[in-house]
Amino acid sequence: MKTVGTLGERGVIRVIDGIVKSEATVGIGDDCAAIDLGDKYLLVTTDMMVTKTHIPKGMGPYDVGWALVAVNLSDIAAMGGKPLGVVTAIGITKGHPIEFLEQMVDGMNDCAIRFGTSIVGGDTKEHEDLILCGTAVGEVSKTGILLRKGARPGDLIAVTGALGKAGSGFYSLKRGLGLKDAEDRLKRPWPRVKEGMVLSASGIVTSCMDISDGLSSSIFELSRNSGMTHEIDYVKIPKAPEVEMAFHDLERQKDLVLNFGDDFELLLTIKREHEQDMPALAEKMGCPLTVIGKVTSGEENILVDNGKREKLENLGYEHFRARKY
Amino acid sequence: MKTVGTLGERGVIRVIDGIVKSEATVGIGDDCAAIDLGDKYLLVTTDMMVTKTHIPKGMGPYDVGWALVAVNLSDIAAMGGKPLGVVTAIGITKGHPIEFLEQMVDGMNDCAIRFGTSIVGGDTKEHEDLILCGTAVGEVSKTGILLRKGARPGDLIAVTGALGKAGSGFYSLKRGLGLKDAEDRLKRPWPRVKEGMVLSASGIVTSCMDISDGLSSSIFELSRNSGMTHEIDYVKIPKAPEVEMAFHDLERQKDLVLNFGDDFELLLTIKREHEQDMPALAEKMGCPLTVIGKVTSGEENILVDNGKREKLENLGYEHFRARKY
Repeated sequence: MKTVGTLGERGVIRVIDGIVKSEATVGIGDDCAAIDLGDKYLLVTTDMMVTKTHIPKGMGPYDVGWALVAVNLSDIAAMGGKPLGVVTAIGITKGHPIEFLEQMVDGMNDCAIRFGTSIVGGDTKEHEDLILCGTAVGEVSKTGILLRKGARPGDLIAVTGALGKAGSGFYSLKRGLGLKDAEDRLKRPWPRVKEGMVLSASGIVTSCMDISDGLSSSIFELSRNSGMTHEIDYVKIPKAPEVEMAFHDLERQKDLVLNFGDDFELLLTIKREHEQDMPALAEKMGCPLTVIGKVTSGEENILVDNGKREKLENLGYEHFRARKY
Repeated sequence: MKTVGTLGERGVIRVIDGIVKSEATVGIGDDCAAIDLGDKYLLVTTDMMVTKTHIPKGMGPYDVGWALVAVNLSDIAAMGGKPLGVVTAIGITKGHPIEFLEQMVDGMNDCAIRFGTSIVGGDTKEHEDLILCGTAVGEVSKTGILLRKGARPGDLIAVTGALGKAGSGFYSLKRGLGLKDAEDRLKRPWPRVKEGMVLSASGIVTSCMDISDGLSSSIFELSRNSGMTHEIDYVKIPKAPEVEMAFHDLERQKDLVLNFGDDFELLLTIKREHEQDMPALAEKMGCPLTVIGKVTSGEENILVDNGKREKLENLGYEHFRARKY
């Protein structure tokens, strides 16, 4: 008898995708489902957060609540959407202090409000440990929707913000390095909601997703969707200043920047002829937008490092699985 | 240190409601949240289903998947909405057979399709036991939205279908009575989606909710929302034929009909002057619609039984808590 454990996460999704007959315009496999509302698309995304009996070291109930809402809003952002509301289902033990619940809901509420939306409803159930499920809904114009597919050879690859910050925060917490900003970013992810809406309105983005599982993994995900390959230049990748404080070793730094994830920056492709529009776009977003490579039609995804071309490895989420809560 | 266990389910919701600042037109406390989309309302509802290590006796994986989708669609139906899509988050162990996952997703898919919508996305996580979270979205016209509040003295109280079927199924499974139809109804709830849409379009409904937690509990919930009281006549309540097969004892039958729940019929109030429109409405719905009492402005909710007036007790869900999965 074959079990779910033999499938892996991707295999599970393949099984589900093979069964459900989605009527959505965009179904399983993108950051959100997109449902045709006539004049626009309704976006829907759901994320379950399983915490073991303990919350990871350094992450308090407020952070947990914040993170639940943030990861869902990041999916809305990745499609260029405007959030309309978030519902949260909470499985909690009888033994949790009321204060824990209050702080967690505070975190949910603050995150939703900070990014221009609100918690509109939810459900609570008694359970043996804390388990949370958030669902965000949003809207996006039909011409402005950003998908994982759509890149063409020659398009530029860009990222918002800087990479490696959340990862540095993880090692800071683990080893007591005191990189407070980075730790805060790990504990309270920052969805690029406004940035996604600006990118959607720009009309120059050909594909987009959020980097929840790491840059390398996300590059491969774009490849899977567009059928294209990518060439990224390590030197060009904007790195959080904390990365070199987390590790002296250059290979460990590289691993952090390429494979850690949890930064929730947006990874996107842009029509090459619009390169000159990028500074104005970055200003409108209030956030750096950096070209890190280009879309190709080759055999494999390539990483250029100081002029040396190597095959980009898909390490991302799987690589760091052990530290996931 | 006070714990969540001291609050009870309603207390937990009060805590959450006190913290979140919902921007929705209808927020916490109704069957769905309603978000203003300009020309109509977007409805969103989420339900977490916690199964212990075992699925309740007689309920297979297909039923579990079906039920998850059905309870969410019932919330959309209770607001008069047209379902637009369902997302499902699945927490499952590595040890579950792949076949279990397949059957469960089959149940989700079949239920969604049966009621005119589809599974549009989801999430999967590894967890120590099976835990499911479904979220349904729907739409409803601004004039057609059905809320828990809105009833006025003199309005008629009505229910769709018949009550006590799911409860009879529960006792049939427990005691091996072989009431197959009733068992099926318990295992695979039947949301009144089409019926809700017809009621919404009729313009004669002043309030509505689904009877997931039992008739008595639902009557009190309408009271809490409208500030009105209700008088229902036990003799008039349409009873599933299985009720008297489940119990000979009349008091046990009464308990089943009034307090069991899981029937997912709609409980609604209708303007008295439209009583003559009800047969046409029932025909349009393809489902019985029966007047069981009237809205009053008294001191308490009253149950009339063979001419004897007694105080209606709020037993519903709490009463049967022990058998809930």
